[in-house]
Amino acid sequence: MCSPLLIEDCTINDMKSKDRKNRKLWGGRFKDASSDVTERISASIHFDSRLYDQDIRGSIAHARMLNRIGILSDDELRSIVDGLHQIRREIEEGVFEFSSSLEDIHMNIEARLTERIGEIGRKLHTARSRNDQISLDLRMYIREQLDRIGVLLRNLISLLLDLAEVHSDVVMPGYTHLQIAQPVRFSHYLLAHAWALQRDYKRLQFFKKTSNLLPLGSGALAGVNYDTDRDFLKKELGFDDLIHNSMDAVSDRDFVLDSLYFSSVLGMHLSRFCEDIVLWSSSEFGFLELSDRVTTGSSIMPQKKNPDIAELIRGKTGRLYGNLVSLLTTLKGLPLTYNRDLQEDKEPLFDSVDTVIVALEGIYEILSTMRINSEAMEAAVFKNYSTATDIADYLSKRGIPFREAHEITGSIVRHCEEKGVDFFNIPVSELKKFSSHFDDDAVEFLNPKTSTERKLSEGGTSKSSVEKQIAMLRASLGEMG
Amino acid sequence: MCSPLLIEDCTINDMKSKDRKNRKLWGGRFKDASSDVTERISASIHFDSRLYDQDIRGSIAHARMLNRIGILSDDELRSIVDGLHQIRREIEEGVFEFSSSLEDIHMNIEARLTERIGEIGRKLHTARSRNDQISLDLRMYIREQLDRIGVLLRNLISLLLDLAEVHSDVVMPGYTHLQIAQPVRFSHYLLAHAWALQRDYKRLQFFKKTSNLLPLGSGALAGVNYDTDRDFLKKELGFDDLIHNSMDAVSDRDFVLDSLYFSSVLGMHLSRFCEDIVLWSSSEFGFLELSDRVTTGSSIMPQKKNPDIAELIRGKTGRLYGNLVSLLTTLKGLPLTYNRDLQEDKEPLFDSVDTVIVALEGIYEILSTMRINSEAMEAAVFKNYSTATDIADYLSKRGIPFREAHEITGSIVRHCEEKGVDFFNIPVSELKKFSSHFDDDAVEFLNPKTSTERKLSEGGTSKSSVEKQIAMLRASLGEMG
Amino acid sequence: MCSPLLIEDCTINDMKSKDRKNRKLWGGRFKDASSDVTERISASIHFDSRLYDQDIRGSIAHARMLNRIGILSDDELRSIVDGLHQIRREIEEGVFEFSSSLEDIHMNIEARLTERIGEIGRKLHTARSRNDQISLDLRMYIREQLDRIGVLLRNLISLLLDLAEVHSDVVMPGYTHLQIAQPVRFSHYLLAHAWALQRDYKRLQFFKKTSNLLPLGSGALAGVNYDTDRDFLKKELGFDDLIHNSMDAVSDRDFVLDSLYFSSVLGMHLSRFCEDIVLWSSSEFGFLELSDRVTTGSSIMPQKKNPDIAELIRGKTGRLYGNLVSLLTTLKGLPLTYNRDLQEDKEPLFDSVDTVIVALEGIYEILSTMRINSEAMEAAVFKNYSTATDIADYLSKRGIPFREAHEITGSIVRHCEEKGVDFFNIPVSELKKFSSHFDDDAVEFLNPKTSTERKLSEGGTSKSSVEKQIAMLRASLGEMG
Amino acid sequence: MCSPLLIEDCTINDMKSKDRKNRKLWGGRFKDASSDVTERISASIHFDSRLYDQDIRGSIAHARMLNRIGILSDDELRSIVDGLHQIRREIEEGVFEFSSSLEDIHMNIEARLTERIGEIGRKLHTARSRNDQISLDLRMYIREQLDRIGVLLRNLISLLLDLAEVHSDVVMPGYTHLQIAQPVRFSHYLLAHAWALQRDYKRLQFFKKTSNLLPLGSGALAGVNYDTDRDFLKKELGFDDLIHNSMDAVSDRDFVLDSLYFSSVLGMHLSRFCEDIVLWSSSEFGFLELSDRVTTGSSIMPQKKNPDIAELIRGKTGRLYGNLVSLLTTLKGLPLTYNRDLQEDKEPLFDSVDTVIVALEGIYEILSTMRINSEAMEAAVFKNYSTATDIADYLSKRGIPFREAHEITGSIVRHCEEKGVDFFNIPVSELKKFSSHFDDDAVEFLNPKTSTERKLSEGGTSKSSVEKQIAMLRASLGEMG
Repeated sequence: MCSPLLIEDCTINDMKSKDRKNRKLWGGRFKDASSDVTERISASIHFDSRLYDQDIRGSIAHARMLNRIGILSDDELRSIVDGLHQIRREIEEGVFEFSSSLEDIHMNIEARLTERIGEIGRKLHTARSRNDQISLDLRMYIREQLDRIGVLLRNLISLLLDLAEVHSDVVMPGYTHLQIAQPVRFSHYLLAHAWALQRDYKRLQFFKKTSNLLPLGSGALAGVNYDTDRDFLKKELGFDDLIHNSMDAVSDRDFVLDSLYFSSVLGMHLSRFCEDIVLWSSSEFGFLELSDRVTTGSSIMPQKKNPDIAELIRGKTGRLYGNLVSLLTTLKGLPLTYNRDLQEDKEPLFDSVDTVIVALEGIYEILSTMRINSEAMEAAVFKNYSTATDIADYLSKRGIPFREAHEITGSIVRHCEEKGVDFFNIPVSELKKFSSHFDDDAVEFLNPKTSTERKLSEGGTSKSSVEKQIAMLRASLGEMG
Repeated sequence: MCSPLLIEDCTINDMKSKDRKNRKLWGGRFKDASSDVTERISASIHFDSRLYDQDIRGSIAHARMLNRIGILSDDELRSIVDGLHQIRREIEEGVFEFSSSLEDIHMNIEARLTERIGEIGRKLHTARSRNDQISLDLRMYIREQLDRIGVLLRNLISLLLDLAEVHSDVVMPGYTHLQIAQPVRFSHYLLAHAWALQRDYKRLQFFKKTSNLLPLGSGALAGVNYDTDRDFLKKELGFDDLIHNSMDAVSDRDFVLDSLYFSSVLGMHLSRFCEDIVLWSSSEFGFLELSDRVTTGSSIMPQKKNPDIAELIRGKTGRLYGNLVSLLTTLKGLPLTYNRDLQEDKEPLFDSVDTVIVALEGIYEILSTMRINSEAMEAAVFKNYSTATDIADYLSKRGIPFREAHEITGSIVRHCEEKGVDFFNIPVSELKKFSSHFDDDAVEFLNPKTSTERKLSEGGTSKSSVEKQIAMLRASLGEMG
Repeated sequence: MCSPLLIEDCTINDMKSKDRKNRKLWGGRFKDASSDVTERISASIHFDSRLYDQDIRGSIAHARMLNRIGILSDDELRSIVDGLHQIRREIEEGVFEFSSSLEDIHMNIEARLTERIGEIGRKLHTARSRNDQISLDLRMYIREQLDRIGVLLRNLISLLLDLAEVHSDVVMPGYTHLQIAQPVRFSHYLLAHAWALQRDYKRLQFFKKTSNLLPLGSGALAGVNYDTDRDFLKKELGFDDLIHNSMDAVSDRDFVLDSLYFSSVLGMHLSRFCEDIVLWSSSEFGFLELSDRVTTGSSIMPQKKNPDIAELIRGKTGRLYGNLVSLLTTLKGLPLTYNRDLQEDKEPLFDSVDTVIVALEGIYEILSTMRINSEAMEAAVFKNYSTATDIADYLSKRGIPFREAHEITGSIVRHCEEKGVDFFNIPVSELKKFSSHFDDDAVEFLNPKTSTERKLSEGGTSKSSVEKQIAMLRASLGEMG
Repeated sequence: MCSPLLIEDCTINDMKSKDRKNRKLWGGRFKDASSDVTERISASIHFDSRLYDQDIRGSIAHARMLNRIGILSDDELRSIVDGLHQIRREIEEGVFEFSSSLEDIHMNIEARLTERIGEIGRKLHTARSRNDQISLDLRMYIREQLDRIGVLLRNLISLLLDLAEVHSDVVMPGYTHLQIAQPVRFSHYLLAHAWALQRDYKRLQFFKKTSNLLPLGSGALAGVNYDTDRDFLKKELGFDDLIHNSMDAVSDRDFVLDSLYFSSVLGMHLSRFCEDIVLWSSSEFGFLELSDRVTTGSSIMPQKKNPDIAELIRGKTGRLYGNLVSLLTTLKGLPLTYNRDLQEDKEPLFDSVDTVIVALEGIYEILSTMRINSEAMEAAVFKNYSTATDIADYLSKRGIPFREAHEITGSIVRHCEEKGVDFFNIPVSELKKFSSHFDDDAVEFLNPKTSTERKLSEGGTSKSSVEKQIAMLRASLGEMG
């Protein structure tokens, strides 16, 4: 029925792998060995070996369950559990030989188990499939990494609260459009980042909770021919609930996407923070001095002290976004249920987890070792008419419609600019030329150092607001823990 | 101090706008009018007019608050509220003249208000900024659209439950790698999608809850010089809490990203569903017949009946991902606080909201009007040795380690393939040649029509599991409502 | 054979469209009308009406070809061509009634043609399909828009050359890591952008050339049953070559991707330029003053003059990237040949074209109206030891290995920093303490104003290099034209 | 001037690295060692060690140039070149000790060189910077990898031509919307992919050409204080031209983006091809049988033979897109010139290069070992009224306007569908009921096996068109070589 294709390349390839030993664990119906390129494309052991601990813990729980439902005897269970413990030790001591011909971590461990404990090892795969096994490993991994990241996030928020407390009275220019807008407390600025990170933490908690579901017991896609005890597995492995549909269990990668999205938003937040750090440690701003510990020099320019770590954290946003796009793309348009494309879920995940961890550690190091140049900050508020809004509000409170007050103040600004007049020291007599509503008390409203305390509204940059925020975030940190 | 740039293009441009009237509301300090291209780039009224209702409701609440704290008299309040109601009516009747020279919805409405009610209108902008105003409008919009999408999601899940009930006994091939894997119930397949959509719904609820916070009162970035009553605003406008940091309030776009991410994952789920719909309505699969209502013909091929709506929903995943990437990109590396780049948040959001709504309506229409070809589905389970796993499990239950049982079954499959033997009717005598453990009862395990009931595990494809899932999802739908 | 699905929603939907007239041009085999949502999802007329001119020109050429091969008589041709010209006029005068029930621009025009000229109009679709027609329209559109963008690109490069010439002697700090690194000419900086834009131009030309191929005549996918004269069409419509495979012709969207990629890279270049513009027009840098024409004010802060246009151009990079991701996603994993998903190609394309055009116009306006603060630039080179590399090179030229020279200079910098010594005026006697190789002539090497002329290498920041670059780019501009 | 931050974490960190040896080559002005996390974030040696060969070749050329302009003596040159050759050997023999504290490949090699040959090694970095050095290495790497990929692309195109020749007469259904549309030659289908790959090849050549420019000699950003001979370097290292602006040289990463974009489009093409391969090797289509060499089995389902390699190539599109997004994101909004963010360019590049190579090898293996089930293909053309267009064209040629002919044929299709009549064998007498224009010769137009030869147009699916295409592509392959 078939027209065989007889071309040279094919024959050459045939030669190459003729004498390779077929050690696959699924090979019953196969006559020919995989080709080299197949192994290179499909092997995942070089990255999924990272899941060895989750895989072993999952297998031990599975074995215990098989014992409970009578499929493994007590002796068999003991033998399997011992074998798996030994394999874990081999891996952690670096003596385990991973083989890419065995494709993945599951097969590597199972093959080694059988090598060590004999035929009994071949019973372990009863009532499970790699399709539910990999979902299990990955969910356990994510849960544990999110916990790890959670600690780093809390530490960083906590550091920001400490810094806000220490520097609570430092006033600096607040920027919109990178133009000096109004004076703010440096502590208020730091707290803005703390609130953003708190959102990240909430996202992390939600994603962790909604992903902490047991897939094991779903088999390849249809469930298994055994009356397995999934509730036992759930408790044994610390899950909150079962996945209630076996086809969904092996198709779903939402939980990986969620982690990639969480990482992207966190990365975006850090990129904005680092942008400010880079700006503020430039000669032109001069608000911060980064420590030698987080800066590097130039191979050619001896004077350079570059904010490399802040730049790299900012730059790494790229890979966090890229990883999200990568998996979104892979999943698009895939039919149910499991397709091998799904193997592409792990590398972006691992990379984003690693990146987020190192970025959080990096920014912690930057912030905990930098020096604040409060004089430069406070000098800079005397620029760009930073209290113009106070003046408009002054007029507005005297009954002038805000838009008109805004226009009058705009004219004063233009006047100062054109005549080279110092706005912050403009005499009341001069002000009165622009509006009869100005009185002697207007002078105080020009002062940028006291402007923050005129911000009476909740959530504003006043001292009391800053203190309240610190208290709220500290309380929330306590709950997070 | 400056070297003026004297080149022709510049002069030409200068000419063009000399006689344009400067109607900006922020123009006090400006001498020259904006150039044409500035207006074309910076105007947002052609898309943010969509927010008119949120803007007006926000302004009314703001006016009420200003009245409470003594900034607006009762008469002024009444006049403003009446004016805003009239403007809403003008907009809804299509007689409002939007002007791109007034840039955005806020300025268009405010300018018209002053036109209608005079100077009092100019008081409305007291104690707020466009920076907190746009965040307010957008948060209200998202909240309301998420509610709308939530209804569609629940309807779709409900439809899937109805379909699963009606078709609960139809058996079809379950696929992995697009190869027939094991028999499953069609209802189990439908429920796999229902569970995915339930996750979308949970994401929607979480994102709605975490974004439902009041930004108003944050001013430009530092808070405002008035003792505003933000708690009143919160209650008036239905928010769950305040945003407690004014710099965060005007910088944060997480809530938009969250909606774009929610839409991307939902779109991905629908793309996978539609991929199956396209496949299954092909001649080759023949499992579904789509109604004329959701198919279209060809301009050249008279026989074609194409699953266009399913294809378009699948294809629209692109724009949902693209919109997410768009805003992630825009936000990357922006310094705090507000930067004009943030204006780029709205178009992707609006497009994703519209897309998700039409996609949910579209797939609802597809599913509610399609016909199921259950005969074709049931015929197809007699293919590709769909009960091979049952046979391996049969042997495994007779004490053969699973891996060995898997190998024996693999050999049977290869034998059938090579000799052209019908696997589903292979006699026990033949089976015994492969393993002495086969007995007369093995025959039943070859039957794909009863295979689903052999899936004893929770969450598997058995009838009782399907019924349990429907009950769980129905209960959860109730809670969603 | 089918189990009909009888649920309420379905019935309700059925009601709604019962009395709708089926005006589709492909409806021969269809019994039921499309549902409302189908029309809302599948209609493209609201965006592809933009292609009316290309569609009409394509149809005219197609009609001429049909006349050449004897399918249309001379009278029929004349009638069709006249009809199409009239339709163009109707569209341009705004009297054409577009109908979304006729789906797209092709069907709208064809239906109107038949309305106007009768049955003859129904002959026009002979030997073509919408599949090759839309590819034709889109290729013509892209070709013409790329030309338009090319003009803007050349104008912008030309402006940069003018500016570089006018300001060729202004010295400013060159930055790496946003730290002052070495003095450079401002003109050299401008030329760096000119070279990047020249790469964009080359990409544009290549993409235009490789996409300028005729798809028409490919039919739905297999070619057509007529001996069409595609070479005639090619010449008539100004294409460089035919597409030689009909299946490729209707599947391929590389040419759209190429335009989206071109736009993304150009957008990235502009985002980097605008980042510098935003930085440099801040109070802290103060290198540029943007004109009122490209800045806007604040609704609350009367003093603000914000670089909105630069910010918006930077922010719009998001949508350019998003559009690229959108189409890449849509195309991923689509089987050959045409699938309706491909309809999603046009909106991202149109948006990227519009965005690139307005961004190029915007940056042109910024650059042509800004003022350069050369004093501030030149003052800033006396910062951050900007000539440290000159000193290291001085030593290196006296035989000290560069690494050692680098270390010695590093110590001098540290010394100045710790003791508060002015590096630029450090006396030779002091320098000699760090190395005996320093001589009296070392003083000149400390001077940042002459540093640029010490850059002897080709492509460096010296005056002669700048002049050479201007000449090269001018010559290349000539060739571009 | 500074308020020191005294918090515990900071002090703890200080402790940790106090005794670490500072071996940086840029450390002259630094007092404190880098922190651990700094090293973990900023070290790139674990991935850029891949560039060792390019780095060494670049250094040798640079040394030769320094010798030409009198900076290195002949002896020094010999010593450096010998040292570099030895280092290359050490690396290739696996005995070189890479140190992450030396950050990158450049510093690792330079430090080792000085270790081996003493102080002379410290002269090598004269007149260059890591900023131009890394651009050099990367451009050489890309050039060489593009060549390697070019060979694989040509081989794949060549294989497709061979296959098209061998199978030139096999007829199969052509699909639009995954519905059978019209009969096509299988060879025509294969050639559609060949043309797409030829576009990839053209893109590759253009990107290679436009990136093959010499950055070396640009120094850190401003050029160097030496009259270097960049033309010598250009020739020595095989570049087509110099980069003429030093700031552009160290800022530009377009050439990396171009490679990432090339890879994305190629990956998209392969994903579409693989989608068809997956579909066609399903039981339902049955057009292809993949060899054991490129399929794998299931750990649980003994009968499975899954098209894993095709799925993985399709799935890997995700990482190719992700890598493009990653670098686009990183570059967005970066000020000129070099920023450390740019270090993030290499990992996505390396990953895309590796992915494209393995994907091209994988699909080659799939195609060269698959079996074509031509009977199944040819049986399938007798489905879904595949010759309906031929009938419409038949009528159209008899003078009926095409739209009317289309409607008549649509009615025939509906009639067959409703009455269960076999369209391909419908008698002429029956046809005449639909139109009096049908004659006895209409029967032939129903035959799907001869339909391909009725496609007279250029580029259609007729035998002669296929042969012409093969000849054109073969000729073009020759030129590519």
